[in-house]
Amino acid sequence: MSRIAYVNGRYVPHSEASVHIEDRGYQFADGVYEVVLVHRGKLVDEIPHLDRLDRSLSELQIDAPMPRAPLRQVMREMVRRNRISDGIVYIQATRGVARRDHPFPKNTRPALVMTSRRLAMPDRAKAEEGVAALTIPDIRWARCDIKAVALLPNVLGKQQAREAGAYEAWQVDDEGYVTEGTSTNTWIVTPDGELVTRQIGEQILSGITRATLIDLAAKQGVTFVERRFTVAEALGAREAFVTSATSFVTPITKINDTVIGNGRAGSVAMGILDSYLDYAADAGAS
Amino acid sequence: MSRIAYVNGRYVPHSEASVHIEDRGYQFADGVYEVVLVHRGKLVDEIPHLDRLDRSLSELQIDAPMPRAPLRQVMREMVRRNRISDGIVYIQATRGVARRDHPFPKNTRPALVMTSRRLAMPDRAKAEEGVAALTIPDIRWARCDIKAVALLPNVLGKQQAREAGAYEAWQVDDEGYVTEGTSTNTWIVTPDGELVTRQIGEQILSGITRATLIDLAAKQGVTFVERRFTVAEALGAREAFVTSATSFVTPITKINDTVIGNGRAGSVAMGILDSYLDYAADAGAS
Repeated sequence: MSRIAYVNGRYVPHSEASVHIEDRGYQFADGVYEVVLVHRGKLVDEIPHLDRLDRSLSELQIDAPMPRAPLRQVMREMVRRNRISDGIVYIQATRGVARRDHPFPKNTRPALVMTSRRLAMPDRAKAEEGVAALTIPDIRWARCDIKAVALLPNVLGKQQAREAGAYEAWQVDDEGYVTEGTSTNTWIVTPDGELVTRQIGEQILSGITRATLIDLAAKQGVTFVERRFTVAEALGAREAFVTSATSFVTPITKINDTVIGNGRAGSVAMGILDSYLDYAADAGAS
Repeated sequence: MSRIAYVNGRYVPHSEASVHIEDRGYQFADGVYEVVLVHRGKLVDEIPHLDRLDRSLSELQIDAPMPRAPLRQVMREMVRRNRISDGIVYIQATRGVARRDHPFPKNTRPALVMTSRRLAMPDRAKAEEGVAALTIPDIRWARCDIKAVALLPNVLGKQQAREAGAYEAWQVDDEGYVTEGTSTNTWIVTPDGELVTRQIGEQILSGITRATLIDLAAKQGVTFVERRFTVAEALGAREAFVTSATSFVTPITKINDTVIGNGRAGSVAMGILDSYLDYAADAGAS
């Protein structure tokens, strides 16, 4: 069976799915996106993802390309047509096609593109081993709260991590505080057992998985605080991990050359991963 | 006659010119571009533009999509097929099509897209009247020396200018110094008659028209210095203007609510515009 993509009202073979070269997403990065997890054929945290999509569009003054009800229908159709049990739906909306000129074009219809693909749920034993992170300067723009497709700095940061044998790059602001990973939120557990992640603001994306995990941690009785933390504090942490819709909860056991904790995934990270897997299974079952 | 675009080896009708939805230019802003002026059917400053394209690609570790000789041939063919006398050639190169994932894909062929369209040469009488500029915080990333398609902040800034009735937004760094316009370099003439534009660095694009104008100003005996300047200094300047391959030399006669000089284009700006028009005519004639 061939993959199917959705492009501006049509379901098309993925290999033939295309947009005009003057789609402003291509020429100006003038668009936004969401990645929604699918587990057992069901969308996880669908509503918060769509709320965030609406917010991103609103911040850029791009009209919604489609009302929510039919949008949700297309997402389900993508899952169905691509026979996704565990995977993702990728949604991209841009300001649409117009003659290349920086200001917003008038009377242009926003573009909507969707893809879907399989993605395995995390392997608990593998997660236990942990992965490495690298710290790099945060060179991104000042509105990282908008989930825009202007991801070039994220791409460069992720590539830098991979070339260093690391899974993710932790971006660090001018004052020495960690902002977030290139495609993840970043968390630490202090030596006192306090779970910490940076507070929401224009420097980071308000992660949907992040918000879900905060709720799950509270239910587990984990002491939690939203505040910024330095690289030095991260290096001295008992645990570290990153989260996103596609990396779930991924324990970080090394940052730069420093082993975190005992070099294995910590109990807080694994506890939250377990509760998230239960949560996703419940979402999938509902 | 219909417009023709060039897309990855093929000349196609502009209306049908498309790229795959997983071109990394669309999903990650993972690409670069150039806009080259065409005057009397000839490319102006072609070699410096191609040198800068090479540099942008090199900074992003994207292979050149095509060697220079055939690339120059395609540019000429675009001018010819679109019957451009005065206009532009737009060149975009991206890392190519790959399954969406942040790190650089392996063995992916870079993409190359080109468009061309007509653009009138500047009207000297209209230039004399001048246009307004607005100052806004520079919220862009830290590598504005790379001519990347991650232009969303530039789009937002230009739109903000237009909504305020201004032609361009002058972006201002955290220390209060002007960096550049959203699609132009910014210049002032001090009360002492010194021509000033910001020095090249990672905060601004090394403008090709900027470099040409520096040479032309020197030939005219204008005192010139490359240094940063504050908004306050710009407001008190004798003249102000912006430059780019498509805005040429555009005098700025108002910044925010402050009239610059006597509210008309100044003699330095108009002198440089005149010499640039001569220069372009020579390029066109060569």
